[in-house]
Amino acid sequence: MRYSRPSDLMVPMPHLVIEITENTRLTCSQEELLDEANAALLSSGQFQEPDIKSRCITLSTFRQGTEHADRAFVHATLQILDGRDQATRRELGQLVVNAIGEMVRPGAQGQTVQVTVNVVEMERATFSKQIVGG
Amino acid sequence: MRYSRPSDLMVPMPHLVIEITENTRLTCSQEELLDEANAALLSSGQFQEPDIKSRCITLSTFRQGTEHADRAFVHATLQILDGRDQATRRELGQLVVNAIGEMVRPGAQGQTVQVTVNVVEMERATFSKQIVGG
Amino acid sequence: MRYSRPSDLMVPMPHLVIEITENTRLTCSQEELLDEANAALLSSGQFQEPDIKSRCITLSTFRQGTEHADRAFVHATLQILDGRDQATRRELGQLVVNAIGEMVRPGAQGQTVQVTVNVVEMERATFSKQIVGG
Repeated sequence: MRYSRPSDLMVPMPHLVIEITENTRLTCSQEELLDEANAALLSSGQFQEPDIKSRCITLSTFRQGTEHADRAFVHATLQILDGRDQATRRELGQLVVNAIGEMVRPGAQGQTVQVTVNVVEMERATFSKQIVGG
Repeated sequence: MRYSRPSDLMVPMPHLVIEITENTRLTCSQEELLDEANAALLSSGQFQEPDIKSRCITLSTFRQGTEHADRAFVHATLQILDGRDQATRRELGQLVVNAIGEMVRPGAQGQTVQVTVNVVEMERATFSKQIVGG
Repeated sequence: MRYSRPSDLMVPMPHLVIEITENTRLTCSQEELLDEANAALLSSGQFQEPDIKSRCITLSTFRQGTEHADRAFVHATLQILDGRDQATRRELGQLVVNAIGEMVRPGAQGQTVQVTVNVVEMERATFSKQIVGG
């Protein structure tokens, strides 16, 4: 992917939110997970380095299904400004799911862990920003 | 509602996020609230049991209005893949709001508590998933 | 802006979520930040006072870019029911970004802080609510 939207230089994004159940086993720290996700997003050529903003939200109160099985999940939401085509959006989601998937281990008893990424477009026409300082 | 979207078998969802102000009085634990919500969603026939993923986020820093009254609220966001019709989406939201509403008590001085549910569609064409382990 | 949507009287909103990295320097408390944001939203004339519901989420695990620089950001999501025109949505976002921007200080070493506001429409036709008590 090439960086072909210079107007985005004025509109800092993307925003990535990674929700992760507290029983999820990672091969690294959450900070390192964010580093990997940010590096993957930077490699797309779609974003400026300082603009990629990510966070982990650890879920301590969660339920998966109704059977009270020992299950874990990771769900990421990637928020980008609208205007990119579907293939680009899908590729961005794949970059994120692959970065996360490499760092997630199966559950203690070998259970599967669902890793999902939802790509959401933010409305460019009504997006507001303000840079403080500098 | 019948389960009529076999393609969803490959795309685990829904995701339910319940934000709850810390002063909200429940008749049960947050885990039990999630159990009830998941059971309600399962009863719709729209989803597979292991795929219903819910969490509570307790809000400790919040404000409702500008009058500093003692107010509480619960706001749920139900994320489902796109393609279901409006009647189905509304019915899913109703199932969730009813499940939550049964578990919420009025405030300590009898105040009303606003319980709301927003149904959001996730773009199927760009949704990414990876199953780790199994 | 005038309040011209009486049907909203029955559908309590907006919902404002302010994510704030824990290293962000404010000139006030987070509660006061929410007070200012709610007052700004009320001044728009678009909403009823008791219906404006805001919260801060402090981000303790975050990364901005890939260079491990000392950076901070604030990202707000304003959720309103659909039906308002683009100019109104943009104005609402501007009210919020201005309220937040006034309370954010540059980083300890004078770094810039990115403050962004995303305005999201919630689907009115499928939105569910329940008022408990009263």
